[in-house]
Amino acid sequence: MHHLVARAFPICRSITGDGFRETLKILSEIIPLKVYEVPTGTLVFDWNVPKEWNIRDAFIADSEGHKIVDFQKCNLHVVGYSTPVDQWLPLSELQNHLYSLPDQPDAIPYITSYYKERWGFCISHNERLKLKEGNYHAFIDSTLEDGSLTYGECILKGECEQEVFLSTYACHPSMANNELSGPVVTAFIAKWLASQLRKYTYRIIFIPETIGSITYLSRNLEVMKKNIRAGFNISCIGDMGKFSYVASRYGNTLADKVALNVLTYAHPDCNKYSYLDRRSDERQYCSPGVDLPVVTLSRSLYGTYPEYHTSLDNLDFVTPEGLFGGYDYVKKCIEIIENNRTYRLTTLAEPQLGKRGLYPNLSTKETAAAVETMMDFIAYADGTNDLLQISSIIQKPFWEILPIAQKLLEAGLVEETQQ
Amino acid sequence: MHHLVARAFPICRSITGDGFRETLKILSEIIPLKVYEVPTGTLVFDWNVPKEWNIRDAFIADSEGHKIVDFQKCNLHVVGYSTPVDQWLPLSELQNHLYSLPDQPDAIPYITSYYKERWGFCISHNERLKLKEGNYHAFIDSTLEDGSLTYGECILKGECEQEVFLSTYACHPSMANNELSGPVVTAFIAKWLASQLRKYTYRIIFIPETIGSITYLSRNLEVMKKNIRAGFNISCIGDMGKFSYVASRYGNTLADKVALNVLTYAHPDCNKYSYLDRRSDERQYCSPGVDLPVVTLSRSLYGTYPEYHTSLDNLDFVTPEGLFGGYDYVKKCIEIIENNRTYRLTTLAEPQLGKRGLYPNLSTKETAAAVETMMDFIAYADGTNDLLQISSIIQKPFWEILPIAQKLLEAGLVEETQQ
Amino acid sequence: MHHLVARAFPICRSITGDGFRETLKILSEIIPLKVYEVPTGTLVFDWNVPKEWNIRDAFIADSEGHKIVDFQKCNLHVVGYSTPVDQWLPLSELQNHLYSLPDQPDAIPYITSYYKERWGFCISHNERLKLKEGNYHAFIDSTLEDGSLTYGECILKGECEQEVFLSTYACHPSMANNELSGPVVTAFIAKWLASQLRKYTYRIIFIPETIGSITYLSRNLEVMKKNIRAGFNISCIGDMGKFSYVASRYGNTLADKVALNVLTYAHPDCNKYSYLDRRSDERQYCSPGVDLPVVTLSRSLYGTYPEYHTSLDNLDFVTPEGLFGGYDYVKKCIEIIENNRTYRLTTLAEPQLGKRGLYPNLSTKETAAAVETMMDFIAYADGTNDLLQISSIIQKPFWEILPIAQKLLEAGLVEETQQ
Repeated sequence: MHHLVARAFPICRSITGDGFRETLKILSEIIPLKVYEVPTGTLVFDWNVPKEWNIRDAFIADSEGHKIVDFQKCNLHVVGYSTPVDQWLPLSELQNHLYSLPDQPDAIPYITSYYKERWGFCISHNERLKLKEGNYHAFIDSTLEDGSLTYGECILKGECEQEVFLSTYACHPSMANNELSGPVVTAFIAKWLASQLRKYTYRIIFIPETIGSITYLSRNLEVMKKNIRAGFNISCIGDMGKFSYVASRYGNTLADKVALNVLTYAHPDCNKYSYLDRRSDERQYCSPGVDLPVVTLSRSLYGTYPEYHTSLDNLDFVTPEGLFGGYDYVKKCIEIIENNRTYRLTTLAEPQLGKRGLYPNLSTKETAAAVETMMDFIAYADGTNDLLQISSIIQKPFWEILPIAQKLLEAGLVEETQQ
Repeated sequence: MHHLVARAFPICRSITGDGFRETLKILSEIIPLKVYEVPTGTLVFDWNVPKEWNIRDAFIADSEGHKIVDFQKCNLHVVGYSTPVDQWLPLSELQNHLYSLPDQPDAIPYITSYYKERWGFCISHNERLKLKEGNYHAFIDSTLEDGSLTYGECILKGECEQEVFLSTYACHPSMANNELSGPVVTAFIAKWLASQLRKYTYRIIFIPETIGSITYLSRNLEVMKKNIRAGFNISCIGDMGKFSYVASRYGNTLADKVALNVLTYAHPDCNKYSYLDRRSDERQYCSPGVDLPVVTLSRSLYGTYPEYHTSLDNLDFVTPEGLFGGYDYVKKCIEIIENNRTYRLTTLAEPQLGKRGLYPNLSTKETAAAVETMMDFIAYADGTNDLLQISSIIQKPFWEILPIAQKLLEAGLVEETQQ
Repeated sequence: MHHLVARAFPICRSITGDGFRETLKILSEIIPLKVYEVPTGTLVFDWNVPKEWNIRDAFIADSEGHKIVDFQKCNLHVVGYSTPVDQWLPLSELQNHLYSLPDQPDAIPYITSYYKERWGFCISHNERLKLKEGNYHAFIDSTLEDGSLTYGECILKGECEQEVFLSTYACHPSMANNELSGPVVTAFIAKWLASQLRKYTYRIIFIPETIGSITYLSRNLEVMKKNIRAGFNISCIGDMGKFSYVASRYGNTLADKVALNVLTYAHPDCNKYSYLDRRSDERQYCSPGVDLPVVTLSRSLYGTYPEYHTSLDNLDFVTPEGLFGGYDYVKKCIEIIENNRTYRLTTLAEPQLGKRGLYPNLSTKETAAAVETMMDFIAYADGTNDLLQISSIIQKPFWEILPIAQKLLEAGLVEETQQ
């Protein structure tokens, strides 16, 4: 996964344009992606698809022709959606087009201006302070024209029509956690899912943030509302920070319960954010009238780490171990959803485990604990609790209860039931 | 308001009699009051209207004719509802008719005996200790005869029949917080309401405590149960103490939610009392079968401050600033009730605020916080939450959300709905 | 009660056999017991009634004929359900049949092997360490043959068919808290109940643990599910430890509320255990499909005290005072169930207590508190709360509210109602 992040890292992505298309192409090597193009100007709910932006080169040069700032070295140097410019101007005027971070003087900030046309450059504050009086050549070879918004979709059919929804965005230029970790982890999850027997159908999309989710919803809302049982927005999931989750609007969907179970038992030292902390596509998926059961899965959440939206969010900040942890987090959530069932005991009173070989011959601390968990599962396998609820009641992880349920199902001591 | 309190302060009020009538007359200068008289003996639920009590003069004089205790100097000196007396008696017998507070030796206590006929005097404990052996002349020129119970009512019609109910009592003699603050603040609230466009009809009453609320309920219960959406008993609301509230019987009415919102956001350092702490007319309004949604609004609650029911509850204890704070507390509650509505977003997904001029041009910490509050309001404007509920969910005061709702309503982004 | 415990203490009880029968006979001196015998092999839900076990003598003797371990001195020395043996064997082989507690070197442990045939001896660890190399004579004169499982039942008819259920077990040999305290306290409760007017019918059973409750349920489930309103498993209730309770499966039955009320107000320094801490017959009574409203009442709960399941759980550990405390705990629970009613105020607004003599003439701290409790009861006597709920709302014990309710009922101020 880290290799894939590294390959896609240099590409200059934005919410539209060839950088986004190129990134989808790389992801297509891992999983089958159907790519859609939605023309500029298309009405999507309250919004219109914006013009398409592409950029070939940009720099600021001093009077002697030395490039002070060079897009070829780092694409964060150009404000996203900058209009073309080719102009000499004194430092005092240039300053109006410069963006830097006094508190993080070595970092190049990430700035965009999608809905107001302007041009600008981002530089480290230390570099900015070195600029001397004089004339500078500002050059941006970009186009902002009618075109289209691009997104990729991968549908993996399952046994039933009900869907699990995975959404991630790939509209950020050279930053690794926010946001190449999301698309790469999601692509590998899709690859794993493609190799599995699936109860649920998986709807997996790679979109630009905000306008992309709005566009996708505007074209798919009806079927999504009908079929989606749980959804996950996957973002900032490749660093070494604590695991975290952003709740859905009321924090009570299946997706919330699943994420909370994984966090509680696999990552107890986690951050649970409320919907009031949202900043990403969960804003659209959980909006009034859309009402999808979607939460965000992350490690260090957007906005909470100093590297966020700067050049420091790089290939060192995201690590192979960090990405694998994120992958495992998403996988655990999906495994719970795939295996969550409701069971009912087939005997009255406690069953006799011994005659079925379900009682350990040797009594150790471990076997005693295992028997206790089995008896606790049996106590609440009354046809009113699914495995997730039992996990919550008896305070044992889902994945410790699941094999017990399967063993008892084989032994005929429980039967599956509709709750 | 403090001026009015000072004017009414010297009058000797009780649950019946001319003192109460005179006080209503002073309040009538501020607002239109319809005055009712209910004859002695009238059956009011489980009670009867008591005899009317009036008093002209009272004193204790020593053998040389010096007035040791003089009603003309302070009307608290006479036990309320004292029967007439004109008698010489030795100190030892007089002591049986004296009431003082050893723990507050400078204070004259406030004592009444409405339902058992007796006579008595209240004096400071220090004065009591100075009394020498000898004969004393006890004199009370009072009458306790058939008459009537008096109360004032002010109905302010609104756009709809549904009512907000304000109740306060004016049956205490020369004490300022408990209880001239209540009637005076309530009269000024009524004056303000009279000048406003009102959605709700306001039923505002000035009564004697307990027997007055029972009498009023017995004559108006049906229409009150039909129309009242929220009610406030207003008492002890003119001192400089913490703001407080006494919950309704189950603590879950609109009046509770409104008071809690104001306390949480305007007076976080407040006292929230349970219904188990009740001592005033909320006892009648929330009683089984009456079941009105009424809470008590106060500053230092009855029974919780040392000046309570003594001569120390005077024109120094109640201040202009204290009264104004109380007035503002009640006003805020009413403004919430008048403006509480349920809204539903008219777009799917988040609306584009920028194209409507609702997004700030300049991004500062303040404008960012304002946008966040607006987006949070939008997130929960799903037709199931009224503004009070949204205030509670997004943890912002009602009055910060209201103008946002109004702005979005004008922009057509939300519509009013029945929950 | 302690005398009865002492009488029954020496008997070697097990889940079947003459020791159990003899114990029932002793209890029969206190209360009428109907004794049932269920033949070996009978199918009881998922189980079969086991063979009957009886034992006459057992010892380990050294080569010189000295009895190292003697069943006649303490019946805990023999592993329960040991098969007969009469064999000489060297110490090394004997060790495989010995059980001791290194952490409690003076205690003889209590061990059974109901469902796997074997023989063994329990000794104190200190005695075990003294054993010298050599040959030993292991002798157990027991029989393990077809017979029957025995239990006792006492049904006390009440005014209605609805039942309160009491269950306790008497299958443990010479241990006093776990478990002679349960049967003895329960027998004395039955004796007391027999002398009372009873609203409810009482179903009181004395059974062997686990297989006994399963057997009893398999023969009575239908009528129990129809009639039982609350049930109590009574165990470990004669020591001086804290009072405790084990919740029912969801912790929300009448039995839970009753036990919690008694603990909260009579024994605030108590232990409240969740159903996850269960180990006794509540496991069967609360199992899925059985679903009886049963909790366990205890003092030091099984498994939580060091004397548990050892020879230290003796006639010193259980005391007359401890037994009486346990008796009183159960009695209080039953008194609540018998007297729990729902009342509704017959007046509107607060009633006038004074004219009915319900208001104290003398106002002291005590009478004021009593009036306050009465007024609080009146405030919530609205026909929706039973006395238990009012107790919980106004935070006063049930037995303080009950006489108030009765006094007000006599005065006609409240009437009984169906909730």
